[in-house]
Amino acid sequence: MSRWDRAALEALDKADPLAAFREQFQFPDGLIYLDGNSLGALPRRTLARVEQTVTQEWGEGLITSWLGAEWITAPRRLGDKIARLLGAEPGEVIVADSTSVNLFKAITAALSLRPERSVILSETGNFPTDLYMMQGIAAFSGGRIRAEAVHEDAVLDRLGDDVAVLLLTQVHYKTGAVRDMAEVTRRAHQAGVLVVWDLSHSAGAIPVGLNAADADFAVGCGYKFLNGGPGAPAYLFAARRHQAHAMPVLSGWMGHAAPFAFEDSYRAAEGIEQFLCGTPPILGMAALECGVDLLAEADMAAIRAKSLQLGRVFMDLMDEHVADHGFTLVSPREDPRRGSHVSYAHPQGYGIMQALKERGVIGDFRDPDVLRFGLTPLYLRHVDMLDAVLAIRAVCETRAWDDPRWAVRAAVT
Amino acid sequence: MSRWDRAALEALDKADPLAAFREQFQFPDGLIYLDGNSLGALPRRTLARVEQTVTQEWGEGLITSWLGAEWITAPRRLGDKIARLLGAEPGEVIVADSTSVNLFKAITAALSLRPERSVILSETGNFPTDLYMMQGIAAFSGGRIRAEAVHEDAVLDRLGDDVAVLLLTQVHYKTGAVRDMAEVTRRAHQAGVLVVWDLSHSAGAIPVGLNAADADFAVGCGYKFLNGGPGAPAYLFAARRHQAHAMPVLSGWMGHAAPFAFEDSYRAAEGIEQFLCGTPPILGMAALECGVDLLAEADMAAIRAKSLQLGRVFMDLMDEHVADHGFTLVSPREDPRRGSHVSYAHPQGYGIMQALKERGVIGDFRDPDVLRFGLTPLYLRHVDMLDAVLAIRAVCETRAWDDPRWAVRAAVT
Repeated sequence: MSRWDRAALEALDKADPLAAFREQFQFPDGLIYLDGNSLGALPRRTLARVEQTVTQEWGEGLITSWLGAEWITAPRRLGDKIARLLGAEPGEVIVADSTSVNLFKAITAALSLRPERSVILSETGNFPTDLYMMQGIAAFSGGRIRAEAVHEDAVLDRLGDDVAVLLLTQVHYKTGAVRDMAEVTRRAHQAGVLVVWDLSHSAGAIPVGLNAADADFAVGCGYKFLNGGPGAPAYLFAARRHQAHAMPVLSGWMGHAAPFAFEDSYRAAEGIEQFLCGTPPILGMAALECGVDLLAEADMAAIRAKSLQLGRVFMDLMDEHVADHGFTLVSPREDPRRGSHVSYAHPQGYGIMQALKERGVIGDFRDPDVLRFGLTPLYLRHVDMLDAVLAIRAVCETRAWDDPRWAVRAAVT
Repeated sequence: MSRWDRAALEALDKADPLAAFREQFQFPDGLIYLDGNSLGALPRRTLARVEQTVTQEWGEGLITSWLGAEWITAPRRLGDKIARLLGAEPGEVIVADSTSVNLFKAITAALSLRPERSVILSETGNFPTDLYMMQGIAAFSGGRIRAEAVHEDAVLDRLGDDVAVLLLTQVHYKTGAVRDMAEVTRRAHQAGVLVVWDLSHSAGAIPVGLNAADADFAVGCGYKFLNGGPGAPAYLFAARRHQAHAMPVLSGWMGHAAPFAFEDSYRAAEGIEQFLCGTPPILGMAALECGVDLLAEADMAAIRAKSLQLGRVFMDLMDEHVADHGFTLVSPREDPRRGSHVSYAHPQGYGIMQALKERGVIGDFRDPDVLRFGLTPLYLRHVDMLDAVLAIRAVCETRAWDDPRWAVRAAVT
């Protein structure tokens, strides 16, 4: 008999200290949602807050809400809240723009602190926008800056005195593998290199200790484990020690020392606000704050423990039920090296995921052959792992991937 | 007897072809809102659309809404709609990011088309974020690019073969003065200079003829006359002839030719989508689309005619009622040179505006002494001009500006 039969999993759910959080989210009936690492689910509290922002703050308060509803301080207020999730201090995180735009800010800020160096280093297979933003900076620099990506195993050996910035993602978007932030940062600093961490798949999913790791800069997105909604604003961390010295290239008016003095010359704000650029997106901020507040009510150690448990259960069940169906585990099996999603390669991956969606199990697919299953501790149950794997088995046994509707892949996967 | 007594103004309101639009907006009772040039009012239809986006598209559709609710094509769909307001073609406008970030994209794209030139030119007193973004680009260029701002009257004479890009605002944020887009563009092109137009105070307020003027690039914001909500996404125009040649510096994954191929190397999308960067802010997009759709139902010639009429009435009433109270008209009196707001300088400007707000008349104040009154044809009545001016007179006659509460200016004005 299986170690993870339904009764055993239901017992785990009953003992789950985070179980009550599931009721805080809205879900379609019967859906097993394993894509919270791409777009987090909707907290129930969010609708009322967004309605208030629209009808009361905007509709009634109009322009006076910049002060009256504290819109103007939202980027910093939300940043301080997110800082607690990242092991950072108040005044080290700001909410603004997209992850991509914040990557540009963080990388160029780090470059400004290493003017005698010329290389932005990353790993091949990093999330594309990270690599692309590096490449755009290099192209614009007129030859002064080079963007270089090496194999993940070669990164540390490449750290040399020509490298200004190392850009890495803590939890890999495809494999879920976790980089050792403290060790990588230590090695980089030994070589005089500053590190920009992409925390998009970390924040809210695993404990992040930015200051414990002596981190320099970091960015991340609000719509995954922070449950901030589609295209939620992103965030940027700059260690306090760097704030007085870095140069904001995206020097918009909201990053000015006195935005409403309307001066002709840019003077950067002293603190983390210098990383603001344009007018903050208030509707997105309102939704994001609901997600962050909800997450803050949970214990991060409990989140991590449940996330790892869900991963172990899911992998065990895959071994048990679909061992002979051609799946290859892509994610690290060892707990400390695994984030909060588990990925498998399969030659029919795309079709399998489409067939799973029809059966009420939503994960996602990443080229060329990777199925990702996001394991979000706040709203998933242990029994969901069993039902998901049984659905995968049903798809395989019926060869449901083999469907003409999926012969042409959708543009968005 | 006054030309603009209440009966005459009520007659104008009765004959107003745009009068019915007022009912399409939510307002606090009795408020006269003269700040739609800073934050447009709330269209009544917006709440339902935002609710649907939150509860149905996000809550129920979750990740599938990127295709199922057409989130992924929203930047282009909204761009095409805004293009109609700007005299541009479908495929020439995209909605993304903030105006500040789009300024960065447009300026650097223009620079990439003039690699042999080194100067970004603008006028002193342009909206600060325009100047600041220029300065940030120059600072990052390591001496290759220079940002230069000259007096507004000296701009055309400064166009020389070292100037790559001219950055101007069509309707000045403080004075409301309108630049002749076609003539300035013609003069710039004669000198081999590309022009980036900031349309933040134009779009939805005056007819904008980008292609008629042979414009190169433009940007603008969604939260003023487009009524898209606080911090609404902004837009960027790139003339089709430039799209194959310009280099996107903010080369995020959404601007890639195949974002979901997850390639390591950036390949720009062929069309206007190359100016996308990160994940689009869906809640803000939903609200913005409501504002743009509403505006599209109105005739732009009627909007312009009413806007100018409101301006003439307001200035006449100011002449009649507060001539001896020390106001100096800052905006051009001549119709063709005036946008959709009217500004006055007054030594007690800050206190006057605070006192007006207490009397239910909201405009805004810009350092050092300018009161701005936004005249939004979709939701203002002609009688509102009289009530606003009578409130201004009452403030002056009672010296209500002289209040200890306003001795220290708020950070946000």
